[in-house]
Amino acid sequence: MSRVCTRTRSTVTGNDARPEPFKTGEGPRILRSTAELRELTSHWRCQGFTVGLVPTMGALHRGHLSLVAAARAGCDRVLASIFVNPLQFGPGEDFERYPRDSQEDLAQLRAASVDAIYMPPVSEVYPVDFATTVHVAGAGFDRFEGAARPGHFQGVATIVAKLFSATGPSRAYFSEKDAQQAVIVARLARDLDSGVEIEVCPIVRDPDGLALSSRNVYLTPDQRPDALLLSRWLRECQLAFKAGEGLADRLRGRALAIFGDRGKIRLEYADIVDPMTFAPLEFCAAGARLVIAARLVGLRLIDSATLGGRPIP
Amino acid sequence: MSRVCTRTRSTVTGNDARPEPFKTGEGPRILRSTAELRELTSHWRCQGFTVGLVPTMGALHRGHLSLVAAARAGCDRVLASIFVNPLQFGPGEDFERYPRDSQEDLAQLRAASVDAIYMPPVSEVYPVDFATTVHVAGAGFDRFEGAARPGHFQGVATIVAKLFSATGPSRAYFSEKDAQQAVIVARLARDLDSGVEIEVCPIVRDPDGLALSSRNVYLTPDQRPDALLLSRWLRECQLAFKAGEGLADRLRGRALAIFGDRGKIRLEYADIVDPMTFAPLEFCAAGARLVIAARLVGLRLIDSATLGGRPIP
Repeated sequence: MSRVCTRTRSTVTGNDARPEPFKTGEGPRILRSTAELRELTSHWRCQGFTVGLVPTMGALHRGHLSLVAAARAGCDRVLASIFVNPLQFGPGEDFERYPRDSQEDLAQLRAASVDAIYMPPVSEVYPVDFATTVHVAGAGFDRFEGAARPGHFQGVATIVAKLFSATGPSRAYFSEKDAQQAVIVARLARDLDSGVEIEVCPIVRDPDGLALSSRNVYLTPDQRPDALLLSRWLRECQLAFKAGEGLADRLRGRALAIFGDRGKIRLEYADIVDPMTFAPLEFCAAGARLVIAARLVGLRLIDSATLGGRPIP
Repeated sequence: MSRVCTRTRSTVTGNDARPEPFKTGEGPRILRSTAELRELTSHWRCQGFTVGLVPTMGALHRGHLSLVAAARAGCDRVLASIFVNPLQFGPGEDFERYPRDSQEDLAQLRAASVDAIYMPPVSEVYPVDFATTVHVAGAGFDRFEGAARPGHFQGVATIVAKLFSATGPSRAYFSEKDAQQAVIVARLARDLDSGVEIEVCPIVRDPDGLALSSRNVYLTPDQRPDALLLSRWLRECQLAFKAGEGLADRLRGRALAIFGDRGKIRLEYADIVDPMTFAPLEFCAAGARLVIAARLVGLRLIDSATLGGRPIP
């Protein structure tokens, strides 16, 4: 009998039960390898703890912290991951200049009382001969963000499948801001028998309505009025629906009117879609999802809301 | 906060530890759902047991039983799965007429002392809106079986990823007969952080050299001499290599000579490849993999061996 795939024995016996690998009560444990990740979370599960996973790319803001808070409230143990996933950036996208500040991230996660932080190097996640990808053909994977960023969702699905596989969380927390991603991840979690419940948390916004995003650090003060057009459209759609608007095309038309030819900001899409399939709708309905994306010079902005849902400030 | 993907709560809390879900010592447990599968194997892992997984499509023969025996010898608990996976059959292939005899399969697995058998209905594995696939771009996925059976390896990778995800085995057992599949599965196990060690077990053969296969039930006695040409080529290659043959093209040439124009049997490929990448080799070397496939009327036959490895009888 020959053995294949035995890079390290630690990956092999990782699914077995183990004695307690890490003490608790000393601040979050920093995990750098999949083997450590598996060991700790397997120990937690076998202790009967529910495990909440908050996957992030770092550059944390209050949006991420709201996910951590939801995990803290809903699970016995909370694991946050920080990994800028190269696989979900396309050629010409901002992988290299994506904001990174791990010291600040660690301080925030420590203050938020996470139990462990998974911060692997790229080589741990993607060895040179890495060859496996996960593809989700649902949630309009080829429309909106899927069309704007070819390969993006495959990159997201692959890293999420890996995290679920190594962590075996009870629940994983994602933001409604990346609405399509949240549905794709939920589909993947179910389809791959991950046993993970996906919790989709509300978007956190600045007082003026701008959805928080790690990339907002690149917004200059004079760009902000343009950036606010996204949430303005969402707000106007919600109000119009509340006032009885029934035709989705009228809401689409509002986006064109709002963005018009403002010069620097360019609308990529603004649509009213089925919240699960992301198929464009003809008629407005409570629960329909609003999605919008625009490009502001070198920056892409996206936002989302629900018709009849939580109002935009 | 909204929840997506909560088909059943049982899939949600499935990663949590649980009290003993099944008693042991009463013959194998038959599991029909992913939730049951997760519950039992999670219990085993938390008891500190190593779990061996033997994925099958049923129609069991001594080849499968050798995998079970290896798992029995190497693991504390053994789970066999029986599932004819529609996703790995292409259009026009034999999904409908693939041999199925679950009573006989169960009797064999009982006699082989497996601890549990996972036999899900198709609807449990692939709900109507199933949308996720796993793709492995290694091990010559687009050559040999990958070329002959478009979509086949994607189907294999997807079901295996699901089984690994729900079962969390310490080891999984595959046959060297599906040599390319074994390498693809090993790649997937590593790439998706499954924590599973892949054990590749030797091919079991009839005394005349024919590799056992569930599809051999369709071989008529008068077809058998033709079917034996595959193992004959492997045997001749091994002997030629032992006698000093160094050029891979000479071994390829032997296949053409052996198959010639025999009429009913048609050689699809016969090659000498790198055992990990399945790239065709120019020079023979110990450890090189021999792969061969032929079509005998409506039946596809495949076989494999290692240069310098275990001799074909």
